[in-house]
Amino acid sequence: MKVLPRQNCRTFALMAAWLLSPCLAQSADPLPSWNDRASKQAILAFVGKVTEEGSADFVPVPERIAVFDNDGTLWSEQPVYFQALFIFDRIKAQAPEHPEWGAKEPFASVLKGDLKAALAGGVPALMEMTVATHAGLTTGEFEKIVKEWIRTARHPVTGRAYTDMVYQPMLELLTYLRANGFKTFIVSGGGIEFMRPWAERVYGIPPEQVVGSSLEKRYEVRDGQPVIVGLPEIGFIDDKEGKPLGINLHIGRRPIFAAGNSDGDFQMLEWTTTGKGPRFGLLIHHTDGRREWAYDRESHVGRLARGLDEAPERGWTVVDMKRDWNRVFAGGE
Amino acid sequence: MKVLPRQNCRTFALMAAWLLSPCLAQSADPLPSWNDRASKQAILAFVGKVTEEGSADFVPVPERIAVFDNDGTLWSEQPVYFQALFIFDRIKAQAPEHPEWGAKEPFASVLKGDLKAALAGGVPALMEMTVATHAGLTTGEFEKIVKEWIRTARHPVTGRAYTDMVYQPMLELLTYLRANGFKTFIVSGGGIEFMRPWAERVYGIPPEQVVGSSLEKRYEVRDGQPVIVGLPEIGFIDDKEGKPLGINLHIGRRPIFAAGNSDGDFQMLEWTTTGKGPRFGLLIHHTDGRREWAYDRESHVGRLARGLDEAPERGWTVVDMKRDWNRVFAGGE
Repeated sequence: MKVLPRQNCRTFALMAAWLLSPCLAQSADPLPSWNDRASKQAILAFVGKVTEEGSADFVPVPERIAVFDNDGTLWSEQPVYFQALFIFDRIKAQAPEHPEWGAKEPFASVLKGDLKAALAGGVPALMEMTVATHAGLTTGEFEKIVKEWIRTARHPVTGRAYTDMVYQPMLELLTYLRANGFKTFIVSGGGIEFMRPWAERVYGIPPEQVVGSSLEKRYEVRDGQPVIVGLPEIGFIDDKEGKPLGINLHIGRRPIFAAGNSDGDFQMLEWTTTGKGPRFGLLIHHTDGRREWAYDRESHVGRLARGLDEAPERGWTVVDMKRDWNRVFAGGE
Repeated sequence: MKVLPRQNCRTFALMAAWLLSPCLAQSADPLPSWNDRASKQAILAFVGKVTEEGSADFVPVPERIAVFDNDGTLWSEQPVYFQALFIFDRIKAQAPEHPEWGAKEPFASVLKGDLKAALAGGVPALMEMTVATHAGLTTGEFEKIVKEWIRTARHPVTGRAYTDMVYQPMLELLTYLRANGFKTFIVSGGGIEFMRPWAERVYGIPPEQVVGSSLEKRYEVRDGQPVIVGLPEIGFIDDKEGKPLGINLHIGRRPIFAAGNSDGDFQMLEWTTTGKGPRFGLLIHHTDGRREWAYDRESHVGRLARGLDEAPERGWTVVDMKRDWNRVFAGGE
């Protein structure tokens, strides 16, 4: 290939930019699964103003950081968090090596198929099951197990693959933000290593842009081959106050856009939207009992109360899934 | 701006790509500060093969992760780590509020200007001084202090700004890797919040691609405004075995390229270069006592012994600063 002098390159670059400019502006409807209502209009207006050069609200590309909760924000979280269903499947798979689980809660209830009883112990019980099923594996082993599960497991109510239960409108929103110079991150209470193996394929979010909860780890060399092993100890819980801390640790910039759906996301939205300059807080309100699930203040997962109460005064946009979305799932209606 | 139908855009994109292609291939010498010796040739050969589509060694862009130590790899680290000099300056600045420091080591030695005595306590003494000077500040306050210091402080031996003591050949290497689709990260034992305020400007590495050591943090709301405050407790030490753990936590992929200069980087290079497929390990050997400093096995900072011993059998490339670099500093010869 011929190499040209640098001054010609500038001319060519300008010509190329000119040729492409009408295409860059082409954007029929970037959010086709969103009905033309207030939430969609607010998103479009926000992105419009922060990307308009010369505008008082213009935000340079490196500062366009957008963070998304995962469970209940990018995919469903009923009847329980999908990672809990993964953990239950792991308990069943590992039960032969753990005869003691038959007489030990919450494991015994999982093995009997009584998920309600298994979850009666709340977060501590879930943490105990997480540690019991996730620790002792190398990162490579765990990744393989997650990839196989996400490929083959089916949701107990819908019978669908879990990755078909991601929200089509949110995929469009992720794509739209990235097309406008945003860097998109997941900031989830879920396990960082449970999300990374499929987040890039499904959401277009690479592993280095996934923030989540994790076990402590140890680096060790086995027969000359180094491995990283999960220890039976919680390292970080990326929920509530943990979310701004996870953002600070992993991203090191204050986002200008945050989306969540539960009070576990409250501090993330608070941290994002109290910064200087234009900010956007988005709450997904699960109002569609027919196409998805309807729940908020009294739900055992994804409880949303304070967020609903304070959204108006804080200027957060609340998505009414039933009215605002003409399609819910990427893999269905 | 006119909007064109999509099919025209594809044609225009192809025309634009064709116009620009000679420019993309233009790359007179991407590493002009590197002499034409084995280390430069090895870097060029590696980048050539992993970016050649169809080659058995081709690596897709998302997997092109390159990690760099900072102290002694991207900038100097003598007579002591620059962050230690920052800490000493903080101790002097805060001394009026801490009359007890006059009689308490290692603070007393710092205030007397006896840096050797101040550092006699090794890493624990440094950690104590780090906690004493970094904790209690919000992330915003700390960022301001670092920015002001990095702008105004001068190196005790060279009299230069610290950011002029970054290595020109390494800046070229970072740029060259990025131009070839690599994502570049810092993975340093230094404080993550000490590097982030200037790493983007100086190295082109954004905050979300900086991994380092940190204090525990707390999220709290003060008069309605949330802040993140450093606690007097070490949260993570990103050194030795900590480096692969930091990489796993922040990046979640195994790098294919790692550069370091001390045995604190050994595990990072080990983790990187024992993965499958093409891998590159780079060690900067400080051999230039005239333009920079000459040290390795017996040095109190940046000790390099095991790395030198094992580099040949592990296939790591060792840079001889004196012979391999025709220029050392970005801000000087």
